[in-house]
Amino acid sequence: MRLLITGGAGFLGSLLGRTLLTRGTLAGQGIERLVLLDVAPSQAEWHADRRVEVRTGSLLAGCEAIGRERFDGVFHLASAVSAECEADFDLGMRSNLDSTRALLGALRDGGNLPRLVFASSAAVFGGDPPTLPLPSLVEDFTLPTPQSSYGIQKFISEQLVADFTRKGFIDGRAVRLLTVTVRPGRPNGAASGFMSGIIREPLAALESVCPVALDTEVALSSPTRTVDALIMAYECSRAAFGGRTALNLPALTVSVRQMLDALEAMAGPRIRALVRLERDANIERIVSTWPARFHAARATRLGLSPDPDFRGIIEQYILEHPHAVRVELERF
Amino acid sequence: MRLLITGGAGFLGSLLGRTLLTRGTLAGQGIERLVLLDVAPSQAEWHADRRVEVRTGSLLAGCEAIGRERFDGVFHLASAVSAECEADFDLGMRSNLDSTRALLGALRDGGNLPRLVFASSAAVFGGDPPTLPLPSLVEDFTLPTPQSSYGIQKFISEQLVADFTRKGFIDGRAVRLLTVTVRPGRPNGAASGFMSGIIREPLAALESVCPVALDTEVALSSPTRTVDALIMAYECSRAAFGGRTALNLPALTVSVRQMLDALEAMAGPRIRALVRLERDANIERIVSTWPARFHAARATRLGLSPDPDFRGIIEQYILEHPHAVRVELERF
Repeated sequence: MRLLITGGAGFLGSLLGRTLLTRGTLAGQGIERLVLLDVAPSQAEWHADRRVEVRTGSLLAGCEAIGRERFDGVFHLASAVSAECEADFDLGMRSNLDSTRALLGALRDGGNLPRLVFASSAAVFGGDPPTLPLPSLVEDFTLPTPQSSYGIQKFISEQLVADFTRKGFIDGRAVRLLTVTVRPGRPNGAASGFMSGIIREPLAALESVCPVALDTEVALSSPTRTVDALIMAYECSRAAFGGRTALNLPALTVSVRQMLDALEAMAGPRIRALVRLERDANIERIVSTWPARFHAARATRLGLSPDPDFRGIIEQYILEHPHAVRVELERF
Repeated sequence: MRLLITGGAGFLGSLLGRTLLTRGTLAGQGIERLVLLDVAPSQAEWHADRRVEVRTGSLLAGCEAIGRERFDGVFHLASAVSAECEADFDLGMRSNLDSTRALLGALRDGGNLPRLVFASSAAVFGGDPPTLPLPSLVEDFTLPTPQSSYGIQKFISEQLVADFTRKGFIDGRAVRLLTVTVRPGRPNGAASGFMSGIIREPLAALESVCPVALDTEVALSSPTRTVDALIMAYECSRAAFGGRTALNLPALTVSVRQMLDALEAMAGPRIRALVRLERDANIERIVSTWPARFHAARATRLGLSPDPDFRGIIEQYILEHPHAVRVELERF
């Protein structure tokens, strides 16, 4: 089978690609070809795998070729991130809305009914006061009222995926990803970036800024569980997926303080002290519109579960990125 | 003040325009200019009013000029209808999505923060089985899962109106119109068209086809109450409107049988017998995805109420269109 990952050079796209190649199959079929499309170049060593083609360029420009290639399956992860979309409205509309629409149009033109997993986001949720306050618990049927351009663009894309699916142009499944943490590498401009930074930077013996109050609760998922959810959404039957509405995922809910407590338990108080609280009204405003608690009954029926605790998430990061850790761990 | 009505030659656009000119003011300001834009030409006698400019052409082509004109207010009613959008996917995307986006972009470019009332539709609602069945009662916070391309396009447009408003580009208010009945004139290709046809045609001594089972319940609003709701949405304060989420309207819920009973009570059994039941699976499928019962608490707080009964709706039609009635009324 022939697969495409948009955003294939990104953190999640790379992890997904590596995971798929290691498995070798998807939905019972052997993976013969895996195209990683991204605006950013990437030269990971596993790209030498003869099944992999790395393609660098914008999705919008690449859609014509995609239409001709008749992929069996697509994971659509390419996206401008939340803070970018808030700072540059037109960039977000182009990167997140126009690109998704062009991709869906290209897949429809291919005419082979490809399967598509779309990475939407829990950022579609938010309160729209006074009539619709932020829900304290998000259920499968909770009405998203996005409070950021990023959330609006993701929610609109969900609607397009649903209608292209209903029309029989594609077999689309939208999954609302939670904040994925701990991300490796550099901060990426997402309003949620600090949720990785306050762990990743101290573990590298670097200072880090926490821009929100310590009692702020957030809904998280580890990279591994996130990739598992994307693959499950691809592999399950249309009937099991349960309709064309986007799927919420089970979340680990923790406060920022609990995240720092877990860091301290593993690396000690001097490492925790590398995190400086410096509240940023802009980030706080965006993060405060995201719900922290989910009751994801539909995903649970599909066999998905949240990360059990934040310590396990830190351990996953340390095991996957040993060279990024430059401090002595007290307990690991 | 300078106003624009898109879809200004349509039934609802015309009624709104006439109502506004008769009032002479909107939100406390005198109406000096009223532009009626529509793809279809229109030559109603009241267009001779010196305040009125009739502009014939597509909205998409007209947006550049609209951006320069800096209207104070816009009623955006132009739309391809549900059955058209289902038959021609690309037409619907262009007429309902691209046009709305271009209009919003033009209004943003004008830079004068115009007020916009967007005519969305209760067709955004529908069931997405098995996870999300059709809700038996639609509340203000009910999740729309549109089951038609028309509904998807309206729901996406709502999101755009909300985000352009949040960003301070416009002051937008989206209102989800119910099926408006009794419409005068000819059938218009909407899946809901029969809800006018089964009254209008018999009253003109013509045969009419009812394409759905008689016990089908539908949610209706008269033309007058619909126009009242659009004007209220324009005139109320931003705070009173209650957020940026689209507003549901109070509905009169009746079965098709009750509609025909009301017709018979006014015009007799021979007139009712002009309606032939001939079920159409395509129309039934679309109509069956629309909920029939609404609890519109937010609209009620704004002072809106449903039509009290269907007989009153028929009476409104007869009084407004006396020349279209060609049968003797037994009781009126």
